Amino acid sequence: MTPPSVWVRSRGGTYEVVVGPGLLPDLPRSLVEAVGARRYAVISDDNVAALHGHAVMERLREAGLDASLYTFPAGEASKTRKSWSILTDEMLEAGFGRDACVVAVGGGVTTDMAGFVAATYLRGIPVVQVPTSYLAMIDASVGGKTGVDTKAGKNLVGAFQPPRLVVADTSVLRTLPREERAQGLVEAFKHGAIMDRPYFERLEANFDRLMDADGDAAADAVLRSVEIKAEVVGEDEYESAIRQILNFGHTLGHAIEAASQFRIGHGSAVALGMLLEARLGEEMGVTERGTRERLEKPLVRLVGPLPKFDPEAAVPFLRSDKKVRAGEIRVVLLRRLGEADKGEGWSRAVPEAQLRDLLAKAAAAR
Amino acid sequence: MTPPSVWVRSRGGTYEVVVGPGLLPDLPRSLVEAVGARRYAVISDDNVAALHGHAVMERLREAGLDASLYTFPAGEASKTRKSWSILTDEMLEAGFGRDACVVAVGGGVTTDMAGFVAATYLRGIPVVQVPTSYLAMIDASVGGKTGVDTKAGKNLVGAFQPPRLVVADTSVLRTLPREERAQGLVEAFKHGAIMDRPYFERLEANFDRLMDADGDAAADAVLRSVEIKAEVVGEDEYESAIRQILNFGHTLGHAIEAASQFRIGHGSAVALGMLLEARLGEEMGVTERGTRERLEKPLVRLVGPLPKFDPEAAVPFLRSDKKVRAGEIRVVLLRRLGEADKGEGWSRAVPEAQLRDLLAKAAAAR
Repeated sequence: MTPPSVWVRSRGGTYEVVVGPGLLPDLPRSLVEAVGARRYAVISDDNVAALHGHAVMERLREAGLDASLYTFPAGEASKTRKSWSILTDEMLEAGFGRDACVVAVGGGVTTDMAGFVAATYLRGIPVVQVPTSYLAMIDASVGGKTGVDTKAGKNLVGAFQPPRLVVADTSVLRTLPREERAQGLVEAFKHGAIMDRPYFERLEANFDRLMDADGDAAADAVLRSVEIKAEVVGEDEYESAIRQILNFGHTLGHAIEAASQFRIGHGSAVALGMLLEARLGEEMGVTERGTRERLEKPLVRLVGPLPKFDPEAAVPFLRSDKKVRAGEIRVVLLRRLGEADKGEGWSRAVPEAQLRDLLAKAAAAR
Repeated sequence: MTPPSVWVRSRGGTYEVVVGPGLLPDLPRSLVEAVGARRYAVISDDNVAALHGHAVMERLREAGLDASLYTFPAGEASKTRKSWSILTDEMLEAGFGRDACVVAVGGGVTTDMAGFVAATYLRGIPVVQVPTSYLAMIDASVGGKTGVDTKAGKNLVGAFQPPRLVVADTSVLRTLPREERAQGLVEAFKHGAIMDRPYFERLEANFDRLMDADGDAAADAVLRSVEIKAEVVGEDEYESAIRQILNFGHTLGHAIEAASQFRIGHGSAVALGMLLEARLGEEMGVTERGTRERLEKPLVRLVGPLPKFDPEAAVPFLRSDKKVRAGEIRVVLLRRLGEADKGEGWSRAVPEAQLRDLLAKAAAAR
């Protein structure tokens, strides 16, 4: 049976995101069909290499493909220009040419960074994304965003490089720590919140099965989230308009995450960002009353008590956010659960002072 | 009078390359028309900043534009990921958003590196190229190639980022040292050699005026070279086929240049590469006999006695060349003066041993 998939439109042609349990054994055939590269550079962090990278390598070699594994230390702290340089230099040293392909096997850090390696290697070679976390399956592997972090914030250096193929094998989620499952599912709830209330409610109903990484429940969620993201990204690859709604929770979330020096997890930070931005929307009269409260239950159930943070440390990161335009800080607001607000081009300029207040009040309440 | 210009087709839309003496005073108006950014980051090396960068800054500010100047140490040795990181961090520190624009004022090192800064800054912001050398006007500013060097070779890390506009003010060539004029004109002769014999002969006839940076002769040459490059690049932006002919002289030239640790100038290395590749073509029976000899006179007149080099040091760089495909080293050959050979997709696989012999013989002859 052909596994379900979503086709994503992109300037570099359309590509397929295949979703379902047990897809990895078929990876060699999928690579040959989608890319047909002469050599494959498999990139994983050292954790995922042990769990899946070596197994993938074995399968590729058994299928007669020329493949080499490159690893880097696990963790967001590795998502740097330095790691990117080292991986690039290793591939150059090994003589990979333009007919090579990068295969990113891992979470969002890996898919983002390996994507950036591919985007800039000899000015761009193909990349196939093999996400192994909910976050990477749901979020990082669709849309072609690649990049690394800098001191000034997350993902500030990067490129758009749509993958040639995405293989989301939901069986591998069983190897994902429960906490990371929760962190990733925050993005699924976000998709429900901005676009699809029935999906939000289905996620609530399937909560335990999703947290247990049940293959079918996971495939259902990943597929719907990928559909939502593909629909939004396909309409607006360069993030000038509607694609911004995917940033719901992220203006404040990224700032809080960066201010914590990434000690607060991405999911927790975004969950908090979503609640704060819902509160902001309600205060501004844009978001239906009660929306924040409606979001809070599943989000707190996912990520636990919301993290403490230093509001003053977060403020400078608001200004360095990529969403800053014409010097204004822009925030995506909801109209109601399941519907983003059209605003002024799908986001609204919010004065820094108002955001600073919001952060201060939220921090004081913890 | 409207200065002559060439429109270049690119996946990111078409852009204009304006060519002629005395264009810089109009730069502010051109920027506003072509980009209309909220802020401009002018990037120059420290030499060009003194000659033109500060003057450009003054003009932009007089015109009421928000502009800041960022400089790096002059020279190919600065064309690194490190300089790229520093420039990026300075712009992040200053809070440039996605509505900013990079203005690259300088030679090929600057246009390549500033282009790569723009290509990767917040995943890509616009760049306007203001080339100040023959090489950058003729070669580096058209085609959207950006990048930096690594230990393994030149331009191995980069991205395709077509500029929004290119302003080639041929008056500024007077500030270019004579030797650099000669180095850059090698690429003009290359354009004649691969596509346009009458242009090659016109370059010979105008040799002294071009070397004196006579504004009109220079504008004629830059315009014709840009036309040739635009025609080739417009047909094949991703260098899969005909665009390769622009690499004539470059497979061997780059290897020799890299093996010298960039002590040999790009023009000198390419001139030598053109002569060696012409000789190779004659030996292989592809290139009309006498072509190498025909190329030699103007090239030697331009760059002087051809440089000494270590053939064995050059060999490894042949393999790391971006033109390597399916593990084969590929070379662009001429059919005759003014016409590249169609070969096997505009280049031919040549065994490494044959290239090694060719390099050894050439080195021994010096």
